[in-house]
Amino acid sequence: MARPTPLSGFPEWLPADRIVEQHVLAALQRTFELHGFAGIETRAVEPLDQLLRKGETSKEVYVLRRLQEDTPWTTAAEAVDAARAADDRQLGLHFDLTVPFARYVLENAGHLAFPFKRYQVQKVWRGERPQDGRFREFVQADIDVVGAGELPGHYEVELPLVIAEALGSLASIGMPPVRIMVNNRRVAEGFYRGLGLDDVDAVLRSIDKLDKIGPDAVAELLVAEAAATPEQATACLDLAAISGADTGVVDRVRDLAARHGVVSDLLETGLGELRALVAAAAQRAPGVVVADLRIARGLDYYTGSVYETVLVGHEGLGSICSGGRYDTLASDGATTYPGVGLSVGVSRLVSRLLSAGLVRASRSVPSAVVVAVTSEDTRAVSDAVATALRARGIPVEVAPTAAKFGKQIRYADRRGVPFVWFPGLPAGTADDGSTVGATADQVKDIRSGEQVEADPATWEPPAADRWPQVVPAV
Amino acid sequence: MARPTPLSGFPEWLPADRIVEQHVLAALQRTFELHGFAGIETRAVEPLDQLLRKGETSKEVYVLRRLQEDTPWTTAAEAVDAARAADDRQLGLHFDLTVPFARYVLENAGHLAFPFKRYQVQKVWRGERPQDGRFREFVQADIDVVGAGELPGHYEVELPLVIAEALGSLASIGMPPVRIMVNNRRVAEGFYRGLGLDDVDAVLRSIDKLDKIGPDAVAELLVAEAAATPEQATACLDLAAISGADTGVVDRVRDLAARHGVVSDLLETGLGELRALVAAAAQRAPGVVVADLRIARGLDYYTGSVYETVLVGHEGLGSICSGGRYDTLASDGATTYPGVGLSVGVSRLVSRLLSAGLVRASRSVPSAVVVAVTSEDTRAVSDAVATALRARGIPVEVAPTAAKFGKQIRYADRRGVPFVWFPGLPAGTADDGSTVGATADQVKDIRSGEQVEADPATWEPPAADRWPQVVPAV
Repeated sequence: MARPTPLSGFPEWLPADRIVEQHVLAALQRTFELHGFAGIETRAVEPLDQLLRKGETSKEVYVLRRLQEDTPWTTAAEAVDAARAADDRQLGLHFDLTVPFARYVLENAGHLAFPFKRYQVQKVWRGERPQDGRFREFVQADIDVVGAGELPGHYEVELPLVIAEALGSLASIGMPPVRIMVNNRRVAEGFYRGLGLDDVDAVLRSIDKLDKIGPDAVAELLVAEAAATPEQATACLDLAAISGADTGVVDRVRDLAARHGVVSDLLETGLGELRALVAAAAQRAPGVVVADLRIARGLDYYTGSVYETVLVGHEGLGSICSGGRYDTLASDGATTYPGVGLSVGVSRLVSRLLSAGLVRASRSVPSAVVVAVTSEDTRAVSDAVATALRARGIPVEVAPTAAKFGKQIRYADRRGVPFVWFPGLPAGTADDGSTVGATADQVKDIRSGEQVEADPATWEPPAADRWPQVVPAV
Repeated sequence: MARPTPLSGFPEWLPADRIVEQHVLAALQRTFELHGFAGIETRAVEPLDQLLRKGETSKEVYVLRRLQEDTPWTTAAEAVDAARAADDRQLGLHFDLTVPFARYVLENAGHLAFPFKRYQVQKVWRGERPQDGRFREFVQADIDVVGAGELPGHYEVELPLVIAEALGSLASIGMPPVRIMVNNRRVAEGFYRGLGLDDVDAVLRSIDKLDKIGPDAVAELLVAEAAATPEQATACLDLAAISGADTGVVDRVRDLAARHGVVSDLLETGLGELRALVAAAAQRAPGVVVADLRIARGLDYYTGSVYETVLVGHEGLGSICSGGRYDTLASDGATTYPGVGLSVGVSRLVSRLLSAGLVRASRSVPSAVVVAVTSEDTRAVSDAVATALRARGIPVEVAPTAAKFGKQIRYADRRGVPFVWFPGLPAGTADDGSTVGATADQVKDIRSGEQVEADPATWEPPAADRWPQVVPAV
């Protein structure tokens, strides 16, 4: 077969880059677990009718079909119709982890303790046109907390702070700081309705385009699509222009509302929630969380706080972590399960960390040591050294062949393995002229060339060399 | 929406069971990394023509289609035809990790160092009828080593021993021992050809059914499908009946061959390899590896050692780890990449560990401590305690509401969290009558009821309580 070419939108990493991704995932997981989130995983597929509940995402779904199914395939339109019929089990790949989680909660409600805090790290699939930072297959890392019937508002404060801590823990590997921008749907809805604009979704959809098309075009959109007067459109844009990292933003929104004669209990409720979030964040993650009244979030299921996150200096990449409060995503009729959650776009983040040359792994393999093989007849001696080192948690591999020692050293060097171990055997001389073997084992740091006698039962590599390190690339 | 029901063949775990799965995956990963295997991940999809290279697996493939694709869907038969055309990029979900790995090696050969040792832990999908231990979506954990042009035979010894060590490390959580059964394709092929049976694949396919249909029916199959005489069929069955954990098996095969006048260089080569494997295994993993001449493995790409693994006492579950040596799976025309690898069926294994009641997690959440909240006004005090404990790596959550302390203790108890922390506040009395608060913080072991003063800057839980433990269930 000819050499295959990559599939656009389906990223894969070389081994050293995969070590970076594994480090990012492990750091996120550790923070989530320190905060008591339980890890779950859901299947990759959901019934198509579930995936299509929110019509506007339907374009992104990959539908599955077994190759040997008896029934002939239908057109795409027929597939949608069929899936919407009650007992059709046509399957599609999930496009996020929120819809599967809502289904998991309903399916297992009797076995879960509420409020239920979970994290979930999995691939998702969207049949979109691939772009920089936008993939067809990518990894998301989600945290959510879901209550049965009710969910206290303090979780809307807690969850973005967990994300701030998780992403902040990556500063040591060279990741830039993040800015988490927060808003509250109740503020926006209360303000719009108080202005006299009742098609709140249309206003949000227009405001959501600010970054892409600018304020003038958004003003036109508001007039055209949300039935706004030019004055109402200006007021919406004035609201969207408010941002700040302290509770002063709340006062500015209130002033703006007063100037336009807006009186709204919903607005007041939202402002109280926004104030609590900003105040807590200023104390617990200073400089990270910013109230930004422009944040709209396209999805219509959010009902309270909403969040978007940018990598400072890489704002053009788009949000690397988004989410919000939802009150009605999951309901089995008897009970509604409100929740709040955020989703980290791991592939988007890792892809940028690598392509921008910010982060690298110190080597491409786990091994800290390559044990040399003097001759195939004595491979068992080398295997025994490796076994002794591994028994003390040192990652080791044995050289593939009893080549000249110079070649065995190059085997280690090409992979970035720092140490080569020469088992104690009848004395010999390595390619580089150093004495090897004799009676005692010797270990060589191939970076410095330093070679010392060593005992596999006691030798330790420096702590920084034991496992591959993920470090700033510059 | 009504309560959803599970999809047959798509297993999902409750949080405590997911902790068991995570433990199994972490243990496998640690052993693989200690042996120097680099972790990679490949995309979930491959071009359909790649997946269909081996015709007999085509029935298992899930084909993908974007819902909004313009072209009308075709029949399954047409899809197969289209996929076989050279430049069709129709995609399917991978059904194993070997085919994607072979493609990854070819695609990235210029960036990899050979021999290349990798592990890969991912879900795979097969559209088969679900049965006990047989799923449509399941997790595999693979190790392979691949050479460029050549691959030393000692890896055929090393890889099953790595698996023996990885699975053996799970004995402490209550997993039964495993038996790795090994054979060598060269032995089988040399013997069959030496007997005069040239349709080796037909013989292997028949022998592969021994467990299912028994020796008499296999003998009939050999006559009917492999053109064997009754005497040749008997010889094949005699070979398949040979097994043993020491190198005596090699002598018995040689005796059998001599009795039938079989003379074959291929047989001798295979016996030499089998002897080396059994001898090394007897020393490094005594009692685990057994030569079993009945092991055939259905896939036709194996060319040397083949492996199957059963859980002792659960043989009916089928193999939980299989693989072998392959010489021609990946080739870009200029270079062929021979390899050897094994694949652990993680979902099959974990599903049995759970359903047979062998293994359990000590709790359903990571949290070792629930910090109580005395009133919503003082939630920040509880948050500060949690932050101090987490800073020292102790997983903690804060109670969801300032309910009565008895209710907050039940919150912890329902999740199996061992400790409840009462922040130092003006004194009060818990529901259970114990004194709480006063001036110092107190922490209660809710299993024993013991409650002591504690400082969040220094208190440590017992090591066994810090993280959830995975332990024998009985």
